[in-house]
Amino acid sequence: MAEKFRSPAYIDLIEPYKAGKPISELAREKGLDPDSILKLASNENPLGAPASALEGAKKAASRLSLYPDGNAYELKSAVAKRFGVPVDWVVVGNGSDELMGITCEALVEPGTKTLFSQYYFSVYRIDTLANGGEPVEIPARGFDIDLDAIADAVDDKVRVIFLTTPNNPTGRILTGAQMEEFMERVPSSVIVVLDEAYRDFVPPEQRFDSIAMVKRYPNLMVTRTFSKAYGLAGLRVGFGIAQPELVAFLNRIRPPFNCNAIAQAAAAACLNDDAFLERVYKMNREGVRQLQERFAALGLEFVPSLSNFVLVKIGPKAPELNQWLLDRGIIIRPCASFGLPEWIRVSVGTGPQNERFLSALAEFLAGA
Amino acid sequence: MAEKFRSPAYIDLIEPYKAGKPISELAREKGLDPDSILKLASNENPLGAPASALEGAKKAASRLSLYPDGNAYELKSAVAKRFGVPVDWVVVGNGSDELMGITCEALVEPGTKTLFSQYYFSVYRIDTLANGGEPVEIPARGFDIDLDAIADAVDDKVRVIFLTTPNNPTGRILTGAQMEEFMERVPSSVIVVLDEAYRDFVPPEQRFDSIAMVKRYPNLMVTRTFSKAYGLAGLRVGFGIAQPELVAFLNRIRPPFNCNAIAQAAAAACLNDDAFLERVYKMNREGVRQLQERFAALGLEFVPSLSNFVLVKIGPKAPELNQWLLDRGIIIRPCASFGLPEWIRVSVGTGPQNERFLSALAEFLAGA
Repeated sequence: MAEKFRSPAYIDLIEPYKAGKPISELAREKGLDPDSILKLASNENPLGAPASALEGAKKAASRLSLYPDGNAYELKSAVAKRFGVPVDWVVVGNGSDELMGITCEALVEPGTKTLFSQYYFSVYRIDTLANGGEPVEIPARGFDIDLDAIADAVDDKVRVIFLTTPNNPTGRILTGAQMEEFMERVPSSVIVVLDEAYRDFVPPEQRFDSIAMVKRYPNLMVTRTFSKAYGLAGLRVGFGIAQPELVAFLNRIRPPFNCNAIAQAAAAACLNDDAFLERVYKMNREGVRQLQERFAALGLEFVPSLSNFVLVKIGPKAPELNQWLLDRGIIIRPCASFGLPEWIRVSVGTGPQNERFLSALAEFLAGA
Repeated sequence: MAEKFRSPAYIDLIEPYKAGKPISELAREKGLDPDSILKLASNENPLGAPASALEGAKKAASRLSLYPDGNAYELKSAVAKRFGVPVDWVVVGNGSDELMGITCEALVEPGTKTLFSQYYFSVYRIDTLANGGEPVEIPARGFDIDLDAIADAVDDKVRVIFLTTPNNPTGRILTGAQMEEFMERVPSSVIVVLDEAYRDFVPPEQRFDSIAMVKRYPNLMVTRTFSKAYGLAGLRVGFGIAQPELVAFLNRIRPPFNCNAIAQAAAAACLNDDAFLERVYKMNREGVRQLQERFAALGLEFVPSLSNFVLVKIGPKAPELNQWLLDRGIIIRPCASFGLPEWIRVSVGTGPQNERFLSALAEFLAGA
């Protein structure tokens, strides 16, 4: 018999990421027509990809045999221009989640720690463990990130702090004043990653200028993604904006061709498609209202959302509801993995999609 | 002033990967029409992507707002079927180079080592350093990988051995008998990654059945790519085949959506396009002959190639030739980064592309 291969003890602590169930998988399991399945599990864009992105993708399709531009010149130039920073302040990822991984690989080593709030995106933990660090989860205050507690927990071992606004799965936000105060408290030797994957769903009057903060704090990186409001989750593109010293440092270990040619072209082509973003924003706020009004009418507790999903409390029957919905071809996100076994997270769909889910939910609650 | 952020000392040892110069970059630098530029620098497929892949890509384009299947079910099933292994023996990467990174992240930690031959793909070194390990380069025997010397160098600290056949930049191969003997000498606790990115360019009678070896050695992973013979470098897809214990271990830290939806669909659609592979193989062997015959006629030393590039010795003027070619819109690969400053590596193009390069080379050598 083979001796088990040698590996770092810390890798054994990792449980692989659990993604929303893909439509194709449920279709195979239940023998359903994939087109009949409604997936409200991964905070995807129900409007699909913008036409502008598809145009960009089509142009790149004629040169697929060439490696992507490892420097992502066109996409980085477009991002730099839109956000008013030099090109060397931009780093592109295979999704913004890859940037979390690169950040951990570049900064975390055995004997060091990362901090993040309770109710977190699980890659923060996985990426820390994968590099031998200790992931430290700081209790939330209710459903809010407790920035004071996080700042209090900073010690010499902390290398990276992950913050998410709006947060997933809570849909709650940080304010600019809170972030400002926090950044003043954190030593400049500790990197703060501000994950703004869901920013475009926040009402404009509640957004703050995180890029302006990057200009003041060399230890702050803001990350954005094309997977949510831009509707390009299938393509895997995100970017980080930080001062050039940090960007250059991350580029040392960024895989040279991490973001593929179609993804780069599609993202560059739709970055300034503000008309699409506006449609997405309006439809989403309408959907949040629709879901929350019905949850209230059904007597269900929920966390008012400033994002494209709503966290709602079902109670001990949450796992049963999940199965019941799967049997009906509806995929939502059970929240046990977030430490919330009685809650589910529902992505905001189109009006009719939300209605299909809400009707099924009402039927379940009526004791069907 | 900001205190520099804290980071592992070993990250400072890394020099970022140096890719072949992209056409778009040269076009900007020299004010050239991109269509006039000939790139023979990155071992890309001059026939472009197969039509079968583009058909597959097109189908996926209608669902770009959905996350890719993180389990890559369709692609993995197709790979499993083609190579006669169960589906859980297959792991998919964002290019096969990502699988090298994942392997190092999963297995390498400070105090451990990786081994690879002189004249190596630089990601082996970068990925080792990024995880705090010591990359150990074993001198080649002439231009051949010295398997005995590598086996002799195995000690308790070695976690991973990287082998490449055909090797880049030498174009030399390992034989099945050599691999067999090597695997018998390596302890089963040490993972051997056999990088077969260029396998489809080897004459069939000189190939060996590496997948059959995977069935016998639980510490062997064979990697293949869609970037070379399949002409999909722009999409970033590769895969590894290994026994399920190793595959499951790598999946612990594989980013959940590493391979994008278009890439998965295109790769699955062209995997069995043997007619295309046959065209690519024939054109490539013809191109190798064309290049090597002319190098011989010009009195240049070269390494006879079993891959889709040729390593040729120019002498002390190699850097000058490189600049001279760039001025004429021709990109080749200078080999100083491989420790071969007097050599260049030329990718095999179409007949007319090879001729354009060869004419320019002859003109340079004639003292133009």
